[in-house]
Amino acid sequence: MKIIFIGSGNVATHLATAFKQAGHQIKQVYSLNHHNAELLAKQVEAEAINNLQQITDDADIFIISIKDDAIESVAAELAIRKKLIVHTSGATPLQTILKYTAQAGVFYPLQTFSKAKEVDFKNVPLCIEGANAEITEQLIELAQSISDKVFHVSSDQRKVLHLSAVFACNFPNYLYYVAQQLLAQHNLDFDLVRPLIMETAEKVQEQLPQAVQTGPAIRNDVKTMDAHLALLGNNTALVQLYEMLSQAIIKMGADGHSFE
Amino acid sequence: MKIIFIGSGNVATHLATAFKQAGHQIKQVYSLNHHNAELLAKQVEAEAINNLQQITDDADIFIISIKDDAIESVAAELAIRKKLIVHTSGATPLQTILKYTAQAGVFYPLQTFSKAKEVDFKNVPLCIEGANAEITEQLIELAQSISDKVFHVSSDQRKVLHLSAVFACNFPNYLYYVAQQLLAQHNLDFDLVRPLIMETAEKVQEQLPQAVQTGPAIRNDVKTMDAHLALLGNNTALVQLYEMLSQAIIKMGADGHSFE
Repeated sequence: MKIIFIGSGNVATHLATAFKQAGHQIKQVYSLNHHNAELLAKQVEAEAINNLQQITDDADIFIISIKDDAIESVAAELAIRKKLIVHTSGATPLQTILKYTAQAGVFYPLQTFSKAKEVDFKNVPLCIEGANAEITEQLIELAQSISDKVFHVSSDQRKVLHLSAVFACNFPNYLYYVAQQLLAQHNLDFDLVRPLIMETAEKVQEQLPQAVQTGPAIRNDVKTMDAHLALLGNNTALVQLYEMLSQAIIKMGADGHSFE
Repeated sequence: MKIIFIGSGNVATHLATAFKQAGHQIKQVYSLNHHNAELLAKQVEAEAINNLQQITDDADIFIISIKDDAIESVAAELAIRKKLIVHTSGATPLQTILKYTAQAGVFYPLQTFSKAKEVDFKNVPLCIEGANAEITEQLIELAQSISDKVFHVSSDQRKVLHLSAVFACNFPNYLYYVAQQLLAQHNLDFDLVRPLIMETAEKVQEQLPQAVQTGPAIRNDVKTMDAHLALLGNNTALVQLYEMLSQAIIKMGADGHSFE
């Protein structure tokens, strides 16, 4: 397909690169930040533009990959082009584009991207939604050209997915930070827990988290938990966090498989 | 070395297997649960015993790998044997053994073990402490026979390490559980977030967590956070958890590199 990217951030960069590698043409990359647009455009042999008026008609699809708040106004401006318009946002409904054009869709890659680290797109779940069956099919085909994990996900489901991703990614990363800071305070290297972090993530690739929960809370080992709380001392934020998570794990253990 | 294992749980099983593979002799495996003792003993060609009186004198070291609360009484009983005694607990000081014998040490593998999943011991950090320099050296040598990541860690440091491991492993696993439950409630498969979980762990193998934090909190994206809270609705425990972690991430972003 002939693709135009609106945006040149992490998601746009990784997606555009994957499409290019799969044989698609990236026609243009639009960004208000001309430097970023040029960086990405160069990588994928596209034209960098910083004005929506410069958009070519020689394209099949616009992929909007910018801040959630900015999606609607760009979609409104692009609608007159009569092309398929999709966004890549987990938190934005299809409706945000559908308001302006019937040729609307969502192309949400469920992964955490950083410019520094390459991602194997074959393993990135792509969550697709189209305004009608034909668009859905077209997007699924496009998605399958770069990933083996393509899912049809409604706007309501995508909201939950986005929330789940916060619990599965953003919050664990913060807890890694806490671990790293506690170690640093005692002249211990973060390398000491890096293999543990990997193993914890690997365990749930085959099994469910509840089945592999370990640590003092799931054993209801009050003595160890008290020792940990004492060690956290007057860091009230961490004490609260430790208590809340430990209580939740104790409850998970007691409830068996239910979840309120 | 000639090794006797006291305990036949996950840690004992993985350690004994690694020692056996490295060419050490596992002489005996003691466990009150004779069935477990026999299972492990068979695997490592050792004798299974369920009475400390049956312990042979043809051994160099006792490795106590049982519940923290039970370590002291076993150490007290074993002290008369005049052999090196170590425990594998992150939460127990060296002193617990040192009270009874000067030939005391700690051999703490910092990893999460489950019977179902094999672990490559070469990558497991082993935290060593000896009652004196000679014992420390002997234990480091033993550790290096199975792992490339051997650290000399004091009892005080080990306490912090154990606490950090809770933040790096046990708490993230609970958050995976929350993600899985939210998805299940909306007929979405946990497979959707499994790659995200892996990538999040992989990112911090090279970088520090603070540098790779993503999500609505670090962007201070109040609209998305409010939408997530609305979605969590009347699940007050999860609302509290979401708010507490988001506030902490916002604070981390604002503080730069400091940590109270």
